[in-house]
Amino acid sequence: MATRTKLPDPAELDRRTLDLIESVARQVMAAIEAGTLPAIELPVRGLSNVRYDAKKGYFELGGARKSRTLMANTARVFAQTLRLMAVSRRLVADGDFATKREAYYVAKNWGACRFNDQAESDAVMDDIEALTSMHGLSREQLRFYPESHGGAVAGPLTVIDRNPDTGAAIEVDCAALGSGAYSIPRSVEHLGFRTDAGFILAIETGGMFQRLNSHRFWRRAKCILVEMGGVPTRATRRFIRRLSDERRLPVYCFTDCDPYGFANIYRTLKVGSGNAAHISPLFCVPQARFLGVAPSDIVDYGLEDATHPLTRVDVKRARDTLANDPFFRRHRRWVAAIEEMLKMGVRAEQQALAKWGLNYVIDEYLPRKLADRKSFLP
Amino acid sequence: MATRTKLPDPAELDRRTLDLIESVARQVMAAIEAGTLPAIELPVRGLSNVRYDAKKGYFELGGARKSRTLMANTARVFAQTLRLMAVSRRLVADGDFATKREAYYVAKNWGACRFNDQAESDAVMDDIEALTSMHGLSREQLRFYPESHGGAVAGPLTVIDRNPDTGAAIEVDCAALGSGAYSIPRSVEHLGFRTDAGFILAIETGGMFQRLNSHRFWRRAKCILVEMGGVPTRATRRFIRRLSDERRLPVYCFTDCDPYGFANIYRTLKVGSGNAAHISPLFCVPQARFLGVAPSDIVDYGLEDATHPLTRVDVKRARDTLANDPFFRRHRRWVAAIEEMLKMGVRAEQQALAKWGLNYVIDEYLPRKLADRKSFLP
Repeated sequence: MATRTKLPDPAELDRRTLDLIESVARQVMAAIEAGTLPAIELPVRGLSNVRYDAKKGYFELGGARKSRTLMANTARVFAQTLRLMAVSRRLVADGDFATKREAYYVAKNWGACRFNDQAESDAVMDDIEALTSMHGLSREQLRFYPESHGGAVAGPLTVIDRNPDTGAAIEVDCAALGSGAYSIPRSVEHLGFRTDAGFILAIETGGMFQRLNSHRFWRRAKCILVEMGGVPTRATRRFIRRLSDERRLPVYCFTDCDPYGFANIYRTLKVGSGNAAHISPLFCVPQARFLGVAPSDIVDYGLEDATHPLTRVDVKRARDTLANDPFFRRHRRWVAAIEEMLKMGVRAEQQALAKWGLNYVIDEYLPRKLADRKSFLP
Repeated sequence: MATRTKLPDPAELDRRTLDLIESVARQVMAAIEAGTLPAIELPVRGLSNVRYDAKKGYFELGGARKSRTLMANTARVFAQTLRLMAVSRRLVADGDFATKREAYYVAKNWGACRFNDQAESDAVMDDIEALTSMHGLSREQLRFYPESHGGAVAGPLTVIDRNPDTGAAIEVDCAALGSGAYSIPRSVEHLGFRTDAGFILAIETGGMFQRLNSHRFWRRAKCILVEMGGVPTRATRRFIRRLSDERRLPVYCFTDCDPYGFANIYRTLKVGSGNAAHISPLFCVPQARFLGVAPSDIVDYGLEDATHPLTRVDVKRARDTLANDPFFRRHRRWVAAIEEMLKMGVRAEQQALAKWGLNYVIDEYLPRKLADRKSFLP
């Protein structure tokens, strides 16, 4: 039986966003009326204020705060922060959005407090996002959308969207797109889901996604395929997270067997990254597990002659991970796996399985793996 | 009234592909039986054998041929060429496909004629594609698919695909995907189209695509939106080309105003690139025209203070284009436009229009441009 999700209430999300913006504005106003210097409290975003919370399973901002007080040397950035929040307020009210790049250009008419370059506007926007994330609201809810869209999706999943004109529900059946796929929009907060799938398979490469979709692996395995296309974008991560949370679906990650696949793709999906810890509570997928390709698969599946030597960058990344990454260091099985890879001195791609035939991955590898989910790396 | 396209007959395409592979094999066989050295005739793919055909409107391979004869020092590459064609034959027969990367791994079991790296297998595959392209067949019809998928599509277009399992027709309504979009598959040869749109708008950035899709610009302008996401992939180019040819739709290209937008994105879409001239006849879109952002738009739309200085790379690319690119050199208006940009010393992004308001592009810029299509650059 397909289960149905309750559609999120965008009006309620918008109200919370507006309330937050207005409460900041009111505090500033009150300070001015009281004759004191107005200030905005913002979380410190630096690595000094990040910790890995093993229980929650992701990188998280600590309690450190910085105060942005209106003084002669901060007048410009203070004004920029407030004006950018005012832009967000208008976007919410108008039902519109702006990319980070557009927001930068909108500020071209702000006279003395225009941004000199996008790095400036991005930093202010990150500050605002860090502030709102403390209240469970993402940049997308402020209506600042990323430039890049999400990955592609195929399988037994109906996405419930809205007609932007009329607000009427639109249903997209991700099993009915032929050889094509559903392209995840930049913001996914408003989407609802209906599915009878048993899990989500998050795939590194477009080529592998295409093979599994073309052969309707999703029907055989009762799963939803998501193409990450390298390190997953914000939209892809949030889409997987919401879908997994709401439909209680396990998430299995399928990447190349190399330090990039482990420490960049899988780590970003599961626990986030240290320098964007303020978005972890919404964008991480702590329930994700690593299906493969694992270093032990190279031996178990006879891929030795389809490997490539680790590059110097690979070796450095793997050693850094073992030395410094709090997530991997916490999991003995990951430490052992990475050490095994370093000892073998090779990496293996998802496509290396094609050595045994193009559809070996469908007929042998994935069924064997899925029959022994306890073997997945944490 | 929506017009309907005849679905391509994949069986006929497959028959032509198999015929071609078999005719090469028969020639080799006949030579061996006659006691002579077998040879395969291949087009020379180098720049020496490329010319810009102004009438056809794209870069094209010249008549130069190289002969791959079976001799001691060519035995390996000769065998690789034949075996890769045999793989293609099996893929066509099985209704399957392989990415270039997978094809490389499949050859891991070829003993002495395995490929040492993917550059080797790619070169052989390019030779085979050059051969088949002389007969109007692309690499996709050989069932070697690219790794990267195509761009995203939204608007009044129904894509007619097939269920890979049953062969039954599947219709995808690209106006019914909400805030999402249709992700173009790797191979588009089998797709049919139904539309009442008046033109195709090919857009450089995801952010701009998202804005136009979200505000249903496609309904107002009766057009199909295609997100290129930078230089368009093979699948995106072929999709636009087939859709434009079959529905007789003009194609308008909307990029940033910079040398990369002109000489990389637009040029690749329209006339192809010199080092892949063998695929031009199928992948170029010679009917494409350049809507903007043009250098003259910077003045006409008051974007002067939303520009950025040209980088050294920009200036070099623009000068190279003026000095060497046969397409741009042939069009006086392009030469004038690029010279104007060099004189101003600045570039402008699509998003710069947001200076006048986020939806200025929808309410002012695009309507004014579309009302004067003669102003489009060739």
